[in-house]
Formats: sequence, structure tokens, C-alpha cells
Amino acid sequence: MTYKIAVSGASGYAGGEVLRLLAGHPEVEIGAVTAHSSAGERLGTLQPQLIPLADRVLSDTTAENLSGHDVVFLTLPHGASAEIAAQLGEDTIVIDAAADHRLESASAWEQFYGSAHQGTWPYGLPELRGQRAKLAGARRIAVPGCYPTTIMLGLAPALAEGLVQPTDIVIVAATGTSGAGKSLKPHLLSAEVIGGMSPYGVGGVHRHTPEIEQGLGHAAGVPVQISFTPTLAPMSRGILATSTAKLAPGTTEAQLRAAYHQQYDAEPFVHLLPEGQWPVTKQVIGSNHVTMQLAVDLHAGRAVIVSAADNLTKGTAGGAVQSMNIALGLEEATGLNLLGVTP
Amino acid sequence: MTYKIAVSGASGYAGGEVLRLLAGHPEVEIGAVTAHSSAGERLGTLQPQLIPLADRVLSDTTAENLSGHDVVFLTLPHGASAEIAAQLGEDTIVIDAAADHRLESASAWEQFYGSAHQGTWPYGLPELRGQRAKLAGARRIAVPGCYPTTIMLGLAPALAEGLVQPTDIVIVAATGTSGAGKSLKPHLLSAEVIGGMSPYGVGGVHRHTPEIEQGLGHAAGVPVQISFTPTLAPMSRGILATSTAKLAPGTTEAQLRAAYHQQYDAEPFVHLLPEGQWPVTKQVIGSNHVTMQLAVDLHAGRAVIVSAADNLTKGTAGGAVQSMNIALGLEEATGLNLLGVTP
Amino acid sequence: MTYKIAVSGASGYAGGEVLRLLAGHPEVEIGAVTAHSSAGERLGTLQPQLIPLADRVLSDTTAENLSGHDVVFLTLPHGASAEIAAQLGEDTIVIDAAADHRLESASAWEQFYGSAHQGTWPYGLPELRGQRAKLAGARRIAVPGCYPTTIMLGLAPALAEGLVQPTDIVIVAATGTSGAGKSLKPHLLSAEVIGGMSPYGVGGVHRHTPEIEQGLGHAAGVPVQISFTPTLAPMSRGILATSTAKLAPGTTEAQLRAAYHQQYDAEPFVHLLPEGQWPVTKQVIGSNHVTMQLAVDLHAGRAVIVSAADNLTKGTAGGAVQSMNIALGLEEATGLNLLGVTP
Amino acid sequence: MTYKIAVSGASGYAGGEVLRLLAGHPEVEIGAVTAHSSAGERLGTLQPQLIPLADRVLSDTTAENLSGHDVVFLTLPHGASAEIAAQLGEDTIVIDAAADHRLESASAWEQFYGSAHQGTWPYGLPELRGQRAKLAGARRIAVPGCYPTTIMLGLAPALAEGLVQPTDIVIVAATGTSGAGKSLKPHLLSAEVIGGMSPYGVGGVHRHTPEIEQGLGHAAGVPVQISFTPTLAPMSRGILATSTAKLAPGTTEAQLRAAYHQQYDAEPFVHLLPEGQWPVTKQVIGSNHVTMQLAVDLHAGRAVIVSAADNLTKGTAGGAVQSMNIALGLEEATGLNLLGVTP
Repeated sequence: MTYKIAVSGASGYAGGEVLRLLAGHPEVEIGAVTAHSSAGERLGTLQPQLIPLADRVLSDTTAENLSGHDVVFLTLPHGASAEIAAQLGEDTIVIDAAADHRLESASAWEQFYGSAHQGTWPYGLPELRGQRAKLAGARRIAVPGCYPTTIMLGLAPALAEGLVQPTDIVIVAATGTSGAGKSLKPHLLSAEVIGGMSPYGVGGVHRHTPEIEQGLGHAAGVPVQISFTPTLAPMSRGILATSTAKLAPGTTEAQLRAAYHQQYDAEPFVHLLPEGQWPVTKQVIGSNHVTMQLAVDLHAGRAVIVSAADNLTKGTAGGAVQSMNIALGLEEATGLNLLGVTP
Repeated sequence: MTYKIAVSGASGYAGGEVLRLLAGHPEVEIGAVTAHSSAGERLGTLQPQLIPLADRVLSDTTAENLSGHDVVFLTLPHGASAEIAAQLGEDTIVIDAAADHRLESASAWEQFYGSAHQGTWPYGLPELRGQRAKLAGARRIAVPGCYPTTIMLGLAPALAEGLVQPTDIVIVAATGTSGAGKSLKPHLLSAEVIGGMSPYGVGGVHRHTPEIEQGLGHAAGVPVQISFTPTLAPMSRGILATSTAKLAPGTTEAQLRAAYHQQYDAEPFVHLLPEGQWPVTKQVIGSNHVTMQLAVDLHAGRAVIVSAADNLTKGTAGGAVQSMNIALGLEEATGLNLLGVTP
Repeated sequence: MTYKIAVSGASGYAGGEVLRLLAGHPEVEIGAVTAHSSAGERLGTLQPQLIPLADRVLSDTTAENLSGHDVVFLTLPHGASAEIAAQLGEDTIVIDAAADHRLESASAWEQFYGSAHQGTWPYGLPELRGQRAKLAGARRIAVPGCYPTTIMLGLAPALAEGLVQPTDIVIVAATGTSGAGKSLKPHLLSAEVIGGMSPYGVGGVHRHTPEIEQGLGHAAGVPVQISFTPTLAPMSRGILATSTAKLAPGTTEAQLRAAYHQQYDAEPFVHLLPEGQWPVTKQVIGSNHVTMQLAVDLHAGRAVIVSAADNLTKGTAGGAVQSMNIALGLEEATGLNLLGVTP
Repeated sequence: MTYKIAVSGASGYAGGEVLRLLAGHPEVEIGAVTAHSSAGERLGTLQPQLIPLADRVLSDTTAENLSGHDVVFLTLPHGASAEIAAQLGEDTIVIDAAADHRLESASAWEQFYGSAHQGTWPYGLPELRGQRAKLAGARRIAVPGCYPTTIMLGLAPALAEGLVQPTDIVIVAATGTSGAGKSLKPHLLSAEVIGGMSPYGVGGVHRHTPEIEQGLGHAAGVPVQISFTPTLAPMSRGILATSTAKLAPGTTEAQLRAAYHQQYDAEPFVHLLPEGQWPVTKQVIGSNHVTMQLAVDLHAGRAVIVSAADNLTKGTAGGAVQSMNIALGLEEATGLNLLGVTP
């Protein structure tokens, strides 16, 4: 069977990446591609890489244009998805790349986004314990953020096995600038970005903090508390997350490695690298893979886990397609057998 | 039927890219992966992106290790392929990414490479007129250079139709540094490359000049003469070639566009972009596509054609796999339905 | 004596570079710093590198705020300088980094800029024959464009000595994206630029074409005709220009080298590199130097000259300060003894 | 008076940067420039930015060639400086950019460098409390590492005032690849580096850890313990260090800001940025400045300090020249009035 798919926000980076993946997916047919201010333009003008779809014309992002599809991907600004989803009905699978339905805590949502919470959807990160089952047959899916994906996969096994302490976790991550979307802001201009690094959103609590703490809290079974500093690196794609947590008494590197192997060895997309090999973001660019490595720093009494992902692929569009596959009952890796474009 | 494939030079950039493509090719099985100084190492150490093949171990590049495969890809230094090919026999398809068997002129080979010419093989650029037929059923294939691929596809239709003059063609091209291979040379160090541009091999005749003039000469039906200046750009992959040729008397832009549409509209991988849209190398990174645009500069009396390709994909490994597909009688685009990883 | 200087457009890249240079100039004092939409902001917010000036506040770009200075630098959009200059009076030296007063041909100005020509000012490229004398004591100076500076310095000696032909010159140049200014345009976003190259303004005649042809025409003593293709490279600063011209009958490389040595050996900022060494843009980043190398390609019958400059320094602000020094009767290199920040 | 200076290791990045700064220093004259394997080459071939020094020829790095100068800069591999310094005598100021004489603990030196400790020299970071006085009149100076400079300046005021706890400090820093020197290693090739990030030396204790803990221990007055993860970013220069430490009970952001203002407001090169402005490495590239910003994260109970420096300038050569100025009794900022080359 071929499923008919619509993609909203098709003019942006996340929408373009969903379409790049779907164009190579053997079980789908691409229907409506919609946008807001770019409606009426050729897709090829805005997404020049989508060569087989170049002559498609963007239509308006309306429930009318999105209806009649088996699956609708929403890559819209935060706050816009609940209303559209309500008009699409339960016969359509809606996969939302925005934050709207990720948080379980209505108060956390309201604190960070300043609007009324619209409910919580199954969370599209099947590698977290218990999530894969919730995605099977789901009609609504909230795609995780790119930072949370990279960071939670890096920390979850250690927390789940009680090998590190759930408080005072410190995370510093670097992202490529596509993570900020196609926003016309001065600090994203290439002349500013090339050749330098900068932090952002420091010290105050980043919007991704409650999402990360929520997911890791489920993994740990107790509340988790993090310090998170994101930085902007001079690259288009990729996240490198360095996460450190205090070792539980007696934890050894062998125990940690065993926990990661146990949780991930059967996963198609998450990989603890062999000892001595550290992740490089370029190895996963354009792919749905996440790589990681860990070390025990006895001097500091901390475990250090470094994880790498492509913010647009596994961090957004790839995770979304993987979740769609599960929801539709397809083989989970369908259409996602791409390897990193390296060097 | 599944074809068994060996890849020599699997530790380098070209070999890694062949394997990246073959890992997603539905009709092949990857057999031996061989190297020279890296023999004995895990493939995943040297090619961290090849996650499903990471535990393969590189064997020595010997005829013995390469024999017993349906297809052997050679990504070896210039001068090494003839000897190995001789030992592999005509039952094995040998696809050579080096320059050894590209040139028809023995004297040109000897002038530029300083060794005895080893013969000319069918040329793996099916989009050049007459080449596709020669590749069907071929047992030996010479893969074009990355610069020649990008430049010849850009100029061939104009020359074939006599719309530009065959002499005094001027070409300036920029390449990403993977084009130089994994060579430990100071000028390729990232600290030197990032943030700057430089020319190389200027004024003397570049090794690619006879290859480009040979291919364009076939297209034009008369000898072609070029001035070619390559430059090194601060990017990993991609070639942007700016080619200008004197207009034949009376040539209009409409005539030029018609010639390109006629030659390329049925091609799966070569595209004249719509008027007003210029190629960007990022739109083809990781893909087998070539994009181009043209203009008529009446002030200067020249046609200007700008073409973009990924030097490692269409410029090397993708062109090689495409040629293999033709030689094996497979659908030409098999395993090559990848789109550019953009942004 | 200390000269009091005002800089308009101080929020932009060109204005920031003028201030970076003036902050180290021993004979000047920085007075008003003005802007348009950023008036009222701290300079340090917009130009974080100007640490000693960080607490200055931008005032409005008005003739009132700019008056009372010995020298006023205008880094404004094209078309804005004539009106302001008229209000400043001849006691103030006005140095205009825009195109307004570069072209001698009113019709060329009107064709390319679509407004009435406001006259021609002495041209701030003292290394072109005859220009230095015109800058001594000048009260109005038009700073050349960054492309024209890099290209004209590369070609002028060959043309002046009749060693190349003045028609059918072909130029392809790559620029860093600061050349486009701090413009919020999608194609300048870092996610789009990093990792790729693209052409722009192809085939039609670029705005810089008449400026280049004008300057080279003076050098050659006859009209000059060029084909010019600019490209955008993934770097913040720097221009690499590859210029080729047909050799006059009998021209040798020795003759060419002699012509360049004769014209440039006494220049503080323009350098023909030793044989065998090619320019790299990084060697001049942040400096007022221009480096170049040449070759004779007998196969193609062309001279190839490659020249490198920093578009913001020698290409804009450095050339402006150098011209100011001449106009004020200061030693020409005052405040410009900066070397390239390499690697 | 003009001081005569020799620079050893003049073919490398650190040596080149020392020469770039000295070329603009009004009180010095550059004497011998020496190298090891590059002896006999033109300086301009290896350091193309040093245009006024291009025709100097590198001599061998021997005590004989280095003697007879007032100041000798050593930018040699670790372990080579003690022997040469011994031959130079106390009438020559020796400034060592290697690690040899930084550590006070002989056992720490032996543990991390595997050779006999050669003693401790005055430490060239005058902004650390007490160090400036020790540099006045010093004849031997150990230049700090680039990471330690950036990190210690970021953390020292908070520790000195007891506003953060001295244990469980977590630091993640990103560096440009010039920090690795001109080493021909595959992971430093531009094709590998551009477009990606990677960690290195994780979990084991980095060589810089004892140096950082030593300096911060002096600042705090008690032993300090850190977790340090360095990462490699796709840029030539610059360090961005994110340092977090547990807040002492009751510490407020106002108290922290006051401590930094008190320690740094009179410093010419170290700057706490205004509230709301975060450091970007590009603002200090090519300059001797260090910028920083801090925040109090009450959620995590940590102070977060982000500091930025150019690893080659303030992190190596600029710090060395600044220390020389103090040792010679010159104004401390002489020759160092360069601002960041931005954008």
C-alpha cells in the first residue's frame, strides 16, 4: 500500500528535510506541500535539492489543503499545530515537529511558551524505554527537539541503570545553524557565523530544559535536574552534546558500557562506538544515526558522554519518519537507510 | 540477482563514497574491502559514516583478494590499475576511478603522467553523446575526473550544436578539498583552508586539461582548446565551474537553452535549472545530480555556463555506480536516488 | 596634529572596519559615529570587536551630526552621499565608500543605478597610474569597489605595457559574504552558505563592470572589455580574482613579471609574489595588502593573473584610510601596518 | 631603546603569530628567525602573511643562532626549552610558549609529559592575582596554554571571592584547529574538519587539567578540581569556554558581576561584557582581548561563565608579548592595540 503524505512548512529547513527523506521512501506518495508566505512559489526555488519535486507549487497551509492524506507532517512555528490537528480528524496521522505536544506538564508549557497547553501526544523517540510501544498505531505524534534527542539518548542508559546521579547533570552542546531555522536574524548571517562560536540562551533555563528533564526523568524513574548551555558552531548541520553526570558510588566504565550495549545494540540508529573512537558530527550528517562514546573521569568523579546527531535528520525529520513508520506498522527503518555524507 | 562487489582503496575518500552508495544499492552485496597501508584496520575507524560496515576489516589490495567478485572498483593512485586489471580477467567488471585509462592519446598520457600509456577504456560519462552505448556490457570502465565531469556536462551541448566557438574557452572552477584526497599536505590542513581561497596549478596546463579537451572535442566534432584554472574553496565537497566561450555569430540565449533541454531533459541526473535560478553546490552535495544555468553576455560576446556537482558523488563514486548499472544492464539510477543534503 | 573623524554607517561591516583601522591610527581622534535604524544603540552591541569604543552611542546620520569633523567617512547605501556631502562643505574631507562618485560616465551610472549622476570624485586607488597625485589634497574621494580594487590591480600593469589584449578579458572572482553587507537575505544565512559555493549576477553585466572597464581603460589607454562572473564563497572575508587576457604577440612571462615589478615594487601594499608562490586570501585578511601571481599559458594563449585582497580592508576601509592619509599629507601607510591574520 | 628579538619555531603557527605581533611593535627589532626542518627556507613561503619579513631566511634553532638577542621566544615542542635556555644566560629574556616550565608540581609534569621536570618559571598571565608583579624584571617566563588562559580568566574572580565552590567544576571548551599546530594528522585535514565537530582527549585527564587546577587553586586559595572536555570546532582560531561551578550558598548574580568588575575593569585586555551580551569568538580574533559573560542558573544551582579568546593571540603569542612588555618595563599594551577582525 502507498500512503499519501502532506507536508506543511515545506519552505523551511525541517519541511525540506522531511521531503528529502520521503522522496526516497518506497511506501509513500507525496501529496500537498504547503507554506505560509511562500505559498504560490515553486518548491524548487526554495528547496533546490528536491530535484524530482522542483516543479511542485506550494499551496497555503490550511486544514483544507492538508486533509485527505494518510499522514500530515507539521513543521510549523510553535503554537500552530493544535488547531490544525483538530480539523484533520483521527483518520489522519498527524506528526508535529513543533514543541506543542511534547511536554506533559501544562505549567511548564505555559511558563516557557506563554500560551495554553494543548495536551500531550505520544513522543517520537522510540529508543527511549516504553516509547516504541506507544507509537505503534498512534494517530498523533510529537517529534522531540533536536537537542533533547541527542542529549537524552546520550544519558538515558546511565540514568536508567542508576549508574550516575540524577541531579547536577551538566550539558554543553554545539549545534549547526540550521537548528535556528530559516530565520532572517543578524547573528545567523554567514559573515557573522563563519569562523567563530558563540553561546546563546545561557543561564536562564532553555526551552529544551523541561523536555530533557521530562524524558530523562522517565528513564531514571526519579526527577532529573540539568544545567544546559547551547552554543552555535560554524556549520550547517549537526549537534555535538557533551553530557557529564556524577558517578554513582562504585560505577565502573565496564558497567556503563554494558548498560549502553544492552539498551542500544538492537537499535538500528543508535550506536555506542567501539572503545577509543569518539563521535564526529560529520559521520551522521544527512543520516538518521546517532553515535556516542563515554568515559569515566575518576579525577572529577563524573561520567562523560558525548553524542552526535544531525539536528535536521534524526533530530527532526528522520525521527519523524521513523515514528511514522512505527505508527503505520511499516518496518521501522524504511526510507532511512542513508549513511552520513562524509567527509 | 545480487552482484558481488569489491572496493579497493576503501580507506580513502573515493572508496568511502563508493561504499556509502553501494550500502544502499539493492542489487549488490559488498565483498572485499581493501587498502594499502591501512590493511588490517576496522573500516569503521577510517570511514566512521559506514555504520553497517564498521566491523569489516580492510584486507590488502591484491589481485587475489579482489578476484571472485562480479565488479571491482579501483580507487587507487594513478598508474596502479592496469596491472591489477590484467589479473582480474574479463569475467570481472573493473571500474577505475583513476586517470589511467581515460586518455585516448598515449602521448598526452605520457606527457602528464610520465609513464607508459596502458590503453583506453570506455568512459563512464553516459550523458556525453555516444558514451552510454559504449558502457552497455562493458567490462572495463574509466571513470571521468570530477572537474571534467562538471565542466564537460556544462559545455557539451553548446559545442555540439555549434553555438559557441571551440577555441579560447576559459574555465575557472572551485573545488572542495576532498578533491585532493586524504593527503597529509600542509596546505590542506583545516587551519589553512578554513576562511580562505587559493588557486593551484595555474597557467601550466593542468592534468585535467587534455581530458576535458578530449571529451569536448568529441562533443564539438572539432578540436577544442581551453584555459583552465582550478581553485581550492573552504568546503569539504562540491565543484562550481564557471565556463565561458565565445558566442558563434548570431547565437541567442533561446537557442542555447533549447540545446541544453534537448540534450538533458531525459537525463535522470543532469539539469538545466529554470531561468533565473543559478546552481549552488550545496543542492547536489551527496547526490549524483549536476545542475547548471547559462547566460548570454552580449557585452563580452560570450556564453557563460555555471555547473555544480559533488566531486565525490557524480564526480567520482556516483558516476562509477551509474556506469556499473549500465554495464550490468540494471536500471541506470539504481541506488542513486539520493538528494542533496541541504542546507 | 590630530584630525577629528566621523564615520557614518557605523553599524555596518564597512563602517565597523573603518573604525577598527582608525582605532589604531595615531593621527586621528574618532568623533561622531552615526547610523540609521540603529541610532541610539551602543556601538559595542553592533560591533563587538570595537572594544575601546564599545560604550559610544550611535547618533543619527545627519549632516548636523557629521559636521565639525576634519574627515567624514560615508559608508551608506548607494545614492545617499551626494546630498550629505553638499552640506558638509569643502573644509571637510568626505570619503565615500559607496559607488556614487566612481563612474565618469553619467550614462553608465544611470544605466546601472537608475538615478541621476552626481559627478565624479578623485578615485581612491593610488596604485593606479596617475591617481596618487589626484588624491593629494583632495577634499572628496570615491573609494573603489572591492572587486574593482582586486581585479584592476591584477590587470593594470599588463594592460599598461600592452602585454595583453584589451578585449575579451575574462574574470571570475570569489568573495566572502561580508561583501554583501549586513543584509538579511536568505541566501546569506550561514546554514545556506557554509559548505557551498554559488554564482550571482551572471551574464548580465554586473554593476562593477563599468567601474572595472573604466579603470583598466585608463591603464591601457584604449577601451577595455571584460566578461565578469562573481561567485560567493563560504568565508567571511576575502576576494580571489582569476583574470585572464589574451597575450599580445610575443609576450613572455619575463616581460610580464618585469612590468609588475616596475609598477609595484615601490608600493607598500601591492605585491607580486615570488615565482612559484600563489596568493591565498588568508594571507591578507584584516590587512591592507594585495598579493598576486601571474602565469603565461601558451597552450591557451592567455596570461592568467590571480590576485587576493580583503574586501573590507584594502577593498573598502583600508583603501579609504590610505586615501585619507594621502589627502591629509600623512605618510601613506599610517595606521595600516597590520598583517594578515593567518592561519 | 630598541630591543633585539629572536623567534624560534618561526615556521609554526605560534611562531608566526609572535612575528605578526612583533612586526607592529614599536620598541623591537626582529633578529634571528629559526626553525628545525624548515631551516634554509624563505619565511614568506611558510608564513605568507608576514609580508615585510618575507625574504628573511630561517636559520637552524641553535643556541648559537639565538644568542645575542635581548629576548628570545621559544615556540618549540614540549621538552626542548630547558636545554636551550640554559645556554642563553640570564642576560637574555627567554619566553617559552611550551608547557615545560608552567607546572609547579614535578610529579604532575612527570605524569603528563613523561620526562624530568625542569623547574617552574614566572607565569605569563598577569591578570591572575599576584602574577604581574612576578613578571616585572623576569628573565624567564612560561607562557600559559591557550585553554588555561581562557578558562582561568573566566573562573578566577568567582573562585577568588568564594562565590562558587572549588570542586566539581565542569568545563567544556571548543577550539579552532590552529590550536593543534601545523601537524599533518588526518583528523586535522580540512575535508574532515569543515562542517563538523568532535571531542578529543575525553575523560582521561587532559594535559591542561593540572595547569588549570594549579592556577585556579592559587586564585581560590584552596585546591580546585575540574572536569574538562575539549572539542574541535570548524574554525581556524578561537576558543569558547563554557565553565560551570556550583554556587556557594547565597551567591547572587550581582555579587558575581561585582567580583568580575573589581578584578578586570582596570585590565586592558580582559572584559566582562555588559549584561545581555554574550561573547563571540570572532570579536577577539587576531586580538589580545578576552571577553566573557556570566549567569546564575538557580534551577541547576550553578554559575555559568562563558569566555572567548584567540588561542594564538592572547592564548599564546599575545600573552607572550604582553609578558615581555612587563618584563622589559614597557607599557603593557605596547604593540597589542589590535582589535578583532570581525566579521
